[in-house]
Amino acid sequence: MPMEYKQLEGRQFPRFSGIKTFFRLPVAEMTDSFDVALFGVPFDGGASYRVGQRFGPSGVREVSSLGRGYHWGRNINFTEKLKVADIGDASVVPIDLNQTYELVEKFTSSVVKTGKKFIACGGDHSITLPLLRALHKHHKKPLGLIHFDAHFDTYPPAWDCEYHHGTFVRHAVNEKLIDPTKSVHIGIRGPLATEKDVAFSRDNGITTWSIDAIRGQGVKDLISKWPDFGDMPVYVSFDIDALDPCFVPGTGTPVIGGMTSYEAQTFLRNLPKINLVGADVVEVIPNYDPAQISQLFVVDVMFELLCKMASQEG
Amino acid sequence: MPMEYKQLEGRQFPRFSGIKTFFRLPVAEMTDSFDVALFGVPFDGGASYRVGQRFGPSGVREVSSLGRGYHWGRNINFTEKLKVADIGDASVVPIDLNQTYELVEKFTSSVVKTGKKFIACGGDHSITLPLLRALHKHHKKPLGLIHFDAHFDTYPPAWDCEYHHGTFVRHAVNEKLIDPTKSVHIGIRGPLATEKDVAFSRDNGITTWSIDAIRGQGVKDLISKWPDFGDMPVYVSFDIDALDPCFVPGTGTPVIGGMTSYEAQTFLRNLPKINLVGADVVEVIPNYDPAQISQLFVVDVMFELLCKMASQEG
Amino acid sequence: MPMEYKQLEGRQFPRFSGIKTFFRLPVAEMTDSFDVALFGVPFDGGASYRVGQRFGPSGVREVSSLGRGYHWGRNINFTEKLKVADIGDASVVPIDLNQTYELVEKFTSSVVKTGKKFIACGGDHSITLPLLRALHKHHKKPLGLIHFDAHFDTYPPAWDCEYHHGTFVRHAVNEKLIDPTKSVHIGIRGPLATEKDVAFSRDNGITTWSIDAIRGQGVKDLISKWPDFGDMPVYVSFDIDALDPCFVPGTGTPVIGGMTSYEAQTFLRNLPKINLVGADVVEVIPNYDPAQISQLFVVDVMFELLCKMASQEG
Amino acid sequence: MPMEYKQLEGRQFPRFSGIKTFFRLPVAEMTDSFDVALFGVPFDGGASYRVGQRFGPSGVREVSSLGRGYHWGRNINFTEKLKVADIGDASVVPIDLNQTYELVEKFTSSVVKTGKKFIACGGDHSITLPLLRALHKHHKKPLGLIHFDAHFDTYPPAWDCEYHHGTFVRHAVNEKLIDPTKSVHIGIRGPLATEKDVAFSRDNGITTWSIDAIRGQGVKDLISKWPDFGDMPVYVSFDIDALDPCFVPGTGTPVIGGMTSYEAQTFLRNLPKINLVGADVVEVIPNYDPAQISQLFVVDVMFELLCKMASQEG
Amino acid sequence: MPMEYKQLEGRQFPRFSGIKTFFRLPVAEMTDSFDVALFGVPFDGGASYRVGQRFGPSGVREVSSLGRGYHWGRNINFTEKLKVADIGDASVVPIDLNQTYELVEKFTSSVVKTGKKFIACGGDHSITLPLLRALHKHHKKPLGLIHFDAHFDTYPPAWDCEYHHGTFVRHAVNEKLIDPTKSVHIGIRGPLATEKDVAFSRDNGITTWSIDAIRGQGVKDLISKWPDFGDMPVYVSFDIDALDPCFVPGTGTPVIGGMTSYEAQTFLRNLPKINLVGADVVEVIPNYDPAQISQLFVVDVMFELLCKMASQEG
Amino acid sequence: MPMEYKQLEGRQFPRFSGIKTFFRLPVAEMTDSFDVALFGVPFDGGASYRVGQRFGPSGVREVSSLGRGYHWGRNINFTEKLKVADIGDASVVPIDLNQTYELVEKFTSSVVKTGKKFIACGGDHSITLPLLRALHKHHKKPLGLIHFDAHFDTYPPAWDCEYHHGTFVRHAVNEKLIDPTKSVHIGIRGPLATEKDVAFSRDNGITTWSIDAIRGQGVKDLISKWPDFGDMPVYVSFDIDALDPCFVPGTGTPVIGGMTSYEAQTFLRNLPKINLVGADVVEVIPNYDPAQISQLFVVDVMFELLCKMASQEG
Repeated sequence: MPMEYKQLEGRQFPRFSGIKTFFRLPVAEMTDSFDVALFGVPFDGGASYRVGQRFGPSGVREVSSLGRGYHWGRNINFTEKLKVADIGDASVVPIDLNQTYELVEKFTSSVVKTGKKFIACGGDHSITLPLLRALHKHHKKPLGLIHFDAHFDTYPPAWDCEYHHGTFVRHAVNEKLIDPTKSVHIGIRGPLATEKDVAFSRDNGITTWSIDAIRGQGVKDLISKWPDFGDMPVYVSFDIDALDPCFVPGTGTPVIGGMTSYEAQTFLRNLPKINLVGADVVEVIPNYDPAQISQLFVVDVMFELLCKMASQEG
Repeated sequence: MPMEYKQLEGRQFPRFSGIKTFFRLPVAEMTDSFDVALFGVPFDGGASYRVGQRFGPSGVREVSSLGRGYHWGRNINFTEKLKVADIGDASVVPIDLNQTYELVEKFTSSVVKTGKKFIACGGDHSITLPLLRALHKHHKKPLGLIHFDAHFDTYPPAWDCEYHHGTFVRHAVNEKLIDPTKSVHIGIRGPLATEKDVAFSRDNGITTWSIDAIRGQGVKDLISKWPDFGDMPVYVSFDIDALDPCFVPGTGTPVIGGMTSYEAQTFLRNLPKINLVGADVVEVIPNYDPAQISQLFVVDVMFELLCKMASQEG
Repeated sequence: MPMEYKQLEGRQFPRFSGIKTFFRLPVAEMTDSFDVALFGVPFDGGASYRVGQRFGPSGVREVSSLGRGYHWGRNINFTEKLKVADIGDASVVPIDLNQTYELVEKFTSSVVKTGKKFIACGGDHSITLPLLRALHKHHKKPLGLIHFDAHFDTYPPAWDCEYHHGTFVRHAVNEKLIDPTKSVHIGIRGPLATEKDVAFSRDNGITTWSIDAIRGQGVKDLISKWPDFGDMPVYVSFDIDALDPCFVPGTGTPVIGGMTSYEAQTFLRNLPKINLVGADVVEVIPNYDPAQISQLFVVDVMFELLCKMASQEG
Repeated sequence: MPMEYKQLEGRQFPRFSGIKTFFRLPVAEMTDSFDVALFGVPFDGGASYRVGQRFGPSGVREVSSLGRGYHWGRNINFTEKLKVADIGDASVVPIDLNQTYELVEKFTSSVVKTGKKFIACGGDHSITLPLLRALHKHHKKPLGLIHFDAHFDTYPPAWDCEYHHGTFVRHAVNEKLIDPTKSVHIGIRGPLATEKDVAFSRDNGITTWSIDAIRGQGVKDLISKWPDFGDMPVYVSFDIDALDPCFVPGTGTPVIGGMTSYEAQTFLRNLPKINLVGADVVEVIPNYDPAQISQLFVVDVMFELLCKMASQEG
Repeated sequence: MPMEYKQLEGRQFPRFSGIKTFFRLPVAEMTDSFDVALFGVPFDGGASYRVGQRFGPSGVREVSSLGRGYHWGRNINFTEKLKVADIGDASVVPIDLNQTYELVEKFTSSVVKTGKKFIACGGDHSITLPLLRALHKHHKKPLGLIHFDAHFDTYPPAWDCEYHHGTFVRHAVNEKLIDPTKSVHIGIRGPLATEKDVAFSRDNGITTWSIDAIRGQGVKDLISKWPDFGDMPVYVSFDIDALDPCFVPGTGTPVIGGMTSYEAQTFLRNLPKINLVGADVVEVIPNYDPAQISQLFVVDVMFELLCKMASQEG
Repeated sequence: MPMEYKQLEGRQFPRFSGIKTFFRLPVAEMTDSFDVALFGVPFDGGASYRVGQRFGPSGVREVSSLGRGYHWGRNINFTEKLKVADIGDASVVPIDLNQTYELVEKFTSSVVKTGKKFIACGGDHSITLPLLRALHKHHKKPLGLIHFDAHFDTYPPAWDCEYHHGTFVRHAVNEKLIDPTKSVHIGIRGPLATEKDVAFSRDNGITTWSIDAIRGQGVKDLISKWPDFGDMPVYVSFDIDALDPCFVPGTGTPVIGGMTSYEAQTFLRNLPKINLVGADVVEVIPNYDPAQISQLFVVDVMFELLCKMASQEG
């Protein structure tokens, strides 16, 4: 059990040194007493095009050495409000999605049943479903969902496979893990495969803030229109391809014409008052990220979410 | 002759698989019956600095596997409105610009005389001139030109070479291939070599929407001011260096301070009603594009132009 | 049906141009009349570490444009002795190994039942098993195996998965697809996971030419000691990690201290007189191959095998 | 002594050819008669994370071959107004910051005492302090400072080292090299290490235009609020991490959510009337800049500053 | 304290997953009870050309996930003979060599005084001197030295700095840390700066096995001529530039014409019977190692040395 | 005129600093008084596949900062025996081979008519012909040729272009620039385009030391069989693709199975006594050379040739 949940200090140990954990935070056992668990889900067995998301958690740990604790806008240092630890990676089976789903759900259940919150680092976007299942099992009611993505992820099975990296929203709605009327897609854009791609979300009442809405109405306007989440548990799933590929070249299915990093930050800094119980950041591939800027963006999203969690605690 | 002009389905054959054609469309003979020909012009013998544009068509075919058919904004699937095929590459002579010009003009003439439209994938920007010559020969009157670029491409000969990758507009005006009063430069910016660089376009009456105009007036305003093209044949030439290098690092002569990908999309989605007979997208170099985002942008421009063509057909 | 099975001529069409097929050979239907089918198996769902072998066939097609037909040592041009065609890629399901095995076996059966030979381009090494199953079904007797690899590929299941990229030899022996006494491993070396790694091959009588044997006895000596294959059908499976990583950096599980490219060529040029019915070259990952030299080596192995097949035909 | 201070002409000598100097300008001795000295300070001995800034000057010289002389907005060709030369690199000791500080200060003093202005190309940001010391010694009064950066650079010593790449502002204020009330930080943003990071600048009266200010108020508004520099000597220090990493991936401590290149250009094109006596552009690392766009941005900043200097001369 | 000193099993946890330690071994406190300490010394403040060795330990930990425990030639699994642990990195001050020397010596002394052996992972070659000082202080007599390198590392001070990455042998001899007559350089080659470069080693009686000796006499012959080390403590310092750059592109000062990886392995597998008390592997730079093969070679050297240590224990 | 022809000292100015010239030697005017001129010919307008050789001279100058002067085997420091200078690059026209040939021949004639020797750095292999023409015009008799290459370079015209990067030997023989009976190809290997590829050299009596000869007979044996060059002027043309691509990934048309760097060095160190009047090293492409090892090999060849020239002078 770590004595305290502080970041290794750069002024003592240079940031390039030491064994790499998320944000240079201590490694803890799942059963230790702390508030937020950071873990990796290094799985890319649901990816349909580029692959290598399995190296995401390791790459993100590496660059997260640059991460700091103090959020200027929120005037908060998350490490002073929360005990946060790295609990390593969920076990996965790289060549079997079904086994992986079971392992990840079980792992996550063990985390949440201790009352901890978590932020998971993917991995391709197929990993979100077992995370949601574990949360739903624990909270026993549908969650609200804030979903950053270029894609709806409501797509049908592919090659007779029910699950892949573009289906989690469909399953989450169908399994009642989330309440679609308390769910928002942010960053969606075309090209699409077919007009039907928009049907599922529309028919189920999911709010869609497309890139055209973001640029047309402005982020400022949209953030005044969050669904009323009340005190329901809320989940954030951040597929980094919500951003334009210039900000996150290292992702699996990049789509031209996306959000800027500053727009993403503005959304994250203006989340409504919510009971944020879990989150993931997915689809980073270090091997397509020669200057590590995509991985650094993942770190930034994790930082924003940690500070949001810390603000809630205050 | 392909039985039907459909994209190979990702749900049947994963997008990374198969022999690579533009948008996973069928390969056709020039004489087959279809509407729009996609072809490459893998030539970089007109380039003055970075080189490797010869690998552009091959690289773009590779990433175009990610291309979809449905345009959300236009509510159209181009493959349902148009028969589009990949007819391979024009023959070129990598070490002889003059021979190449003849070969490309001849190749293009064969395409357009069957009444087909085309989108060519470069190659450096010197390839545009023979494409315009072929169109002009067919249409027998000057074309309108919508020209995305950081540079005017009205520059004088270099090293006693009349033709290079920065001269096509000058030749097109002088040869009356285009009507300069029905021509627009979009994205131009400095630094310039000399004050005289602006003279040719100004003196010939070409409209120039510089980056300062784009940011100062806004894209929304500019797209209300397209020239009146009437029913004249119109050509789009898209040099990807119109964009800031962060969006298209893989290009021959990048210039700091350019358009965003979303601004480019906005122009393309708001082209006026025109008789768009041909287009090119040029100056992509895969070897300077480690995460393929420049090549993906080329695919996006081709997609926008195909959907524009499809909308016209409707 | 292609009119003739010739390579597109570089002197007519520069080697960087055109739609990419293996060796610039024509695309053919499986049912056309030719001798050797080249195809890709773009699957990496059996890989335990690095991934991206799914892009192998596409990358190899690209660089195979540099491939020539004439083998100096054999004084033979394979295109003059054999009709060789590219038949595209086998269908795979990237996220389901079992479906993929069925699809690949079926695809391969269709090829071999027409009497054609083939060379498959991987893909990770898990693809070899369905290829062997199809051959065995056709030839109705165990094959001889010449297996280049750093690893025995006789390893046990992992994560309760019977099949992965390190098991094909074990399954092939157990299913009697190959005759272990007519099988040779070439290039094996440590480190190993455990002493037991060597047991399966030793106990089943597979000949092992480790790197120490190659350097200690010399290639010249070893090639005088091939098993007597008689007229049995023989298969060559070439995992490029048989070579030292400096020759093939772009591979999934590189192992220090391997063969040189020239040693590999010497083995391939001195294969015994055999009835070579099929082959694969596997484990190339373009994304770890910045200067394409690994992909070029795959092309070279395919060339050597085609010339061997052509020599047999003579 | 160069006969004239003109750029080598691309139309005579292609831009990829020749021995590389900044902007293809002549190499001169410090004692020659010209106006502005360009030099490199290839030092990274003050860097706390990524390193390789020592190769900055060489990389920037290489891509500066693309640099032109004519500024469209200012209608000025800096080479016609000013004699500018490359005087090579200051001597540095890569493994000793203290020796380097002495060498760089001495080198710079030799430049400024001849009445020349200069633009230095780093190197990490620790190099600014000796540059300022030399200027202060010459001008004998505090300078105004325009400081582009993601970071305040007012940080405390690290590892008992008084000087590193994040301290120059603190030392410059404490040594009275600059007047903090005539100093502006542009581009600052979090995350920060601690709330105290903002104290030094606030307490000393340095103006801070954070990214939130830039986006909230707009560049147009801010540039109406420059401090009144009067005729005091003013220095510009441009740490390229002021920009978002997508524009400058090749930098030492990238921070998500920064300025665009166009915003930076807008600031530089709207500097107030000042007596600009020296400048630096720092923290570029070619080895993290696969498509050279960061280095090209450094060239652009140098170009803007040269044109500003040329405008002053007029 | 780890319960047992075993590698995390790839069959349980895939090799790309988990927090990265050397060889997936447990992290231990220096004072725990085990045999061999692995640690990093992430310092590049002694490097004269390429830099980035500070990221060496982190990069090597990452790829060491591919490491296995069983050595085929020695028929030994080092994890069964020895308790080996990762104790993290020595503290360093990236911008101060002198402080770093003190910190590293102190850190190492703490390790060796518990009777442990160690293998350190650099870092540039300047880190070897404090390691040797700590060993010498503990063993109280000169050590034997087996030194793999392209360079003698007997060079004079540079820029008035007594210590840099090319001086450790000179200092070690002069400080009597090593016995030069029990020291061997392996892999030395030109070009040299001057004829005097060879004088120090020759005059002090250090044996030099240059690449010409290795190729002329053969490794087999040389390994019959090791010095008689008796029972003196022996140290191995392996600068990876001993190898040809094709095997280890990611190093600081590569020299054409070096050893092969197999030759290096042959030396390491045929070390004489020695009391091997410590070792380092230095000069790997992940940022120049796009396919990680240099880092993988470092892992291989560490593996060979661990197995040698394990064999001694037997 | 440089005062002395010495390398800039690394101990004074670190090797990464300063304006880059070959070997850090002074820049001189062609008419200055010195012995050997180093220059670049940055042309790739004769290349049939990969391109970017135009950046070769600049890249080689950069890494040549690592070059030293003392040759251990020859016990000679070339800078003490010869005055060597960098005279910049020959003018070329990137888009016109014919103009380039005239410019390069004229440039080279100006060099050789002052009695200087030269080593040219390419550029693609098409540049050798004008170099030989200039030498022949000066020496007025055929030269001997030592030609390192994977290819014969006796190939026919392509695309109706008489000259390209694979024809110089044919033209040199036909124009009687070289004496084929005093000419040697070293490193030749297949695959070839056709059996006829070997005819020209065989029929004209050029000696061919193929890779099979090198490995079969051994370098030691071959170097006892150099042609008797007498006192004829001799030229060395070194196409780096003579080596295996693992040593020189950054080249235009790599061929698997080539020489090692050490074999190349052995040939160069055992050249016969000759009147070496000129040389070139060609076909390096920095953009395919991520760790710069190909460029470093070019530097090594230049070093070996300079030391050979220096030995002759003694």
